[in-house]
Order: sequence, then structure tokens, then C-alpha cells
Amino acid sequence: MPRYRCVVEYDGSAFNGFQVQAGQPTVQGAVEAAITAFCGEAVRLAAAGRTDTGVHATGQVISFDLAKAWPARTVMNALNAHLVEDPVSILSCEEVDPEFHARFSATGRAYLFRILNRPAPPALEAGRVWHVKKPLDAGAMHAAAQALVGLQDFTTFRDVNCQSASPVKTLDVARVTRAGEEVHLAFEARSFLHRQVRSMTGSLVEVGLGRWSADDLKSALDAKDRSACGPVAPSEGLYLTGVRYD
Amino acid sequence: MPRYRCVVEYDGSAFNGFQVQAGQPTVQGAVEAAITAFCGEAVRLAAAGRTDTGVHATGQVISFDLAKAWPARTVMNALNAHLVEDPVSILSCEEVDPEFHARFSATGRAYLFRILNRPAPPALEAGRVWHVKKPLDAGAMHAAAQALVGLQDFTTFRDVNCQSASPVKTLDVARVTRAGEEVHLAFEARSFLHRQVRSMTGSLVEVGLGRWSADDLKSALDAKDRSACGPVAPSEGLYLTGVRYD
Repeated sequence: MPRYRCVVEYDGSAFNGFQVQAGQPTVQGAVEAAITAFCGEAVRLAAAGRTDTGVHATGQVISFDLAKAWPARTVMNALNAHLVEDPVSILSCEEVDPEFHARFSATGRAYLFRILNRPAPPALEAGRVWHVKKPLDAGAMHAAAQALVGLQDFTTFRDVNCQSASPVKTLDVARVTRAGEEVHLAFEARSFLHRQVRSMTGSLVEVGLGRWSADDLKSALDAKDRSACGPVAPSEGLYLTGVRYD
Repeated sequence: MPRYRCVVEYDGSAFNGFQVQAGQPTVQGAVEAAITAFCGEAVRLAAAGRTDTGVHATGQVISFDLAKAWPARTVMNALNAHLVEDPVSILSCEEVDPEFHARFSATGRAYLFRILNRPAPPALEAGRVWHVKKPLDAGAMHAAAQALVGLQDFTTFRDVNCQSASPVKTLDVARVTRAGEEVHLAFEARSFLHRQVRSMTGSLVEVGLGRWSADDLKSALDAKDRSACGPVAPSEGLYLTGVRYD
């Protein structure tokens, strides 16, 4: 029974999140329906990251089994043909070892948060960026963000509904850069807590606006208290950009 | 009577082009309605480029007069507040000399055409790029495009409905570059003929696909015959990116 791995891009604003829910448009539901439409098989796929409502992906990874062995390129083209009405695109598809699992085999995940930082609202990028009108000091954000890197208790930066057994995670990369009118926050880790990227981003924006110092951010982390978190950034600027497998 | 100049960004896919038409959603109609909603005045605005249906802008320039002198920042913020339901954003606003005219004072216009060049269709950029599946040779496109630069008779590359008095124009810049999965075509001129950029782009894609040589493109130009033009590129990849005033 061949197993396939696909890289998937989607516009999260059209969906109630990734994970399938009865009666709701979800990315998983759209892709599983496309698989059934293509080959008649009902499958349950695995995904590296179960992104929230409104969160986008340029590099989500899924895996699933089919009873019949189709060429991987045929699977990709057929799924894209059946997804033509949905803002979901299969960027690549390959047959992989049956031991591979998109979620459990993943050893790293990368997220990007895009902020449009100018007085005027977005016209072309509406729903794809967080609009922050006041000027952000990206350098100060980057410097402060380094306190988050490493093995930390991220209780401050996880949602109260997070179901992870432990709030302790290792953040490998936190990088804040300016790209013209945009400020980009890139984060990499083996795995993230629920809403961790949006929580860290919202607090780093407080630093960028000059409301918080770098020490304030460090104190928020050290508090290990959800109420010490800054405002949580909205989902619309967040992208799952890549998944690493060793 | 103060005159204002604004730089405007919009998503052209929501409109039947720039120019106002009764009963149709147009960019001009949306902005003029916002002006009226803001200050009660009925105005007719001028624009540097009357973009076609589906064509976007990141740097359109408009000008209009108001009977009452408002601070330019107030005008910008008020228009953006009234445009919140439309994918149109006023990026800047300033009071200018009453001699200034967005269209007739312009001495240069810059357009960008974005091609997404990969097998998979766009999910996040649907409607904002032209999807070309087969690999394009951007270097060959750039080299061939240099034949279009300078003072030329662009009869081959203008729409049969073009209302310009002459097909002779000077193209100042034609630059084709690859940016990851995208190929970007940048054109600059004092002014362009109707559908000139989309006509040149479609023909350059024939070069990029290896169907046309650089000599074929030059021959098409020299033919001064609309039927010698390649397929016209779709509007969805085209952006008016800037206007120059000396």
C-alpha cells in the first residue's frame, strides 16, 4: 500500500483551520475530498501542523496511503485538478517509505509572521498580513527575541487551551527583519505550543512599538504566566513555511 | 480650491477596470464615492493610468479638487475609512499645485508583470499572478526584450481598439528577472498603448518557452502588424507600480 508525501500551499482565510470538522470548510476536508474524487478511496491524511483558522501555509506537509499505486506526478496533478475551486495547491508529491508520517517524523517546523507596517491598510494583501500602522523598530524586536531562543518554559506564550503535555520547548530560531514596508518574524523549532508564534509575535510588537523593553519581554517569559503575555497577534499574518525531516 | 494628489493601491480583480462606468464596480467609482461620503462633495478625479479589468496597482496616482481645504492626512485617513469594504487603499495624500494633473503631468509610468512559473497552481496568489507551468528561460526573455527598447512602432503590440493617435512610443526599460518561482517583467515608458504590456509579455513568454527566438520577437515588432503578436498575457499578473512626475 503506497504512502505519499505532499507539500501543500493554502490560503487559510477560506477555511475553519486545517483539521477536519463535520460541516465546516477545512483544508484537510478539501484535500481528502479531492483524493476521493480522484481515485474513489476514502483516506484520513496526516499533517505536520494543524494550523488554526485563518493561518496560511506555503510548506505544509501531509502524508496518506492509497490502495492502488499511482505515479506521484499523477496524484499531484489530479489533486490540483479537483482542488481548482479551493485555495489549496499541491506543490509536490512523492512516494515515501511506509514508515514516514507527516506529523510524527517531523523534526522541525518553520513559521513566518508577516506584518504590514505602514499607515495605509493593505489592499492587495488584505487577509495575508497583520496591519500595524505605527512604525516598528525591527532591530529592537530582533534583539529582544533572542531571549526566547533555547530551551524554555513557554507557559506565558501558549494558549490556555493548549493540549501539549509540557510547556517546555526548544526554540531554535527567532529572527526579525524588515523587508520594505513589511516586518517579518521567522521562528523555527522542533514543535510549537498552541498559538505560541502568535503569542510571541504579539509581545514582540509591543517591543517594536516601544511599549515594552527587551527586559519586559524577558520578564514576561520568566513569569511563566499566561497573563504576562502581550496581545496575541491575529492569525492572518501567519504562515507555516516548511517542515524538516531528518 | 485645493488640489490633492494620492498614491493608490488596489486589487483589480474586484473591479471592472479603473474608469468609472454606470452600474459597474470600478476603482474610480469607489474612490469618488468615498470622497463624497467623507466631505459631501461630488468630484471627478484624474488618474495616471486607466487600468483594465483585473489589472492591479501598487502605485496608481490620482488627483482631484475639493472646495474645502482639509489637511492631506485627514483626507487620506477619511478615504481609507470609507474604502474599508473595497480592496483599495490610499497610500499617501498631499496637497499639490493647482496646475498638477495626475494624467497630463505624468512623464513616466512603470508596470510589473508577475508570472508564477511552477507546475502547481497558485493558492495564495491566485488572481495576482499569471500561472505558467512550463519552465521559462528568464535570461532569454530579457535578452530578446532589449529589441523592444527605444523609439518603436508598437503596432504589433497594441490592442485593435487602442485609441492612441500614434503607435510610435519610446520604451525606456524592459527588464526580465527571476525571483524564485516567479518571473518578473518590468517595463517603463512615458506612456503605453492599450494592452501593450500584456501583448509584449505574452510574446516574451513565447521566447521563454523556447517557441520563439529573439529574432522571431524582433520580426514580430518589425512586422507592425497586430496579427504577428503572440498570445496576449492575462490581466491578473499586471501591476501599475509607479508614475513619475518631473
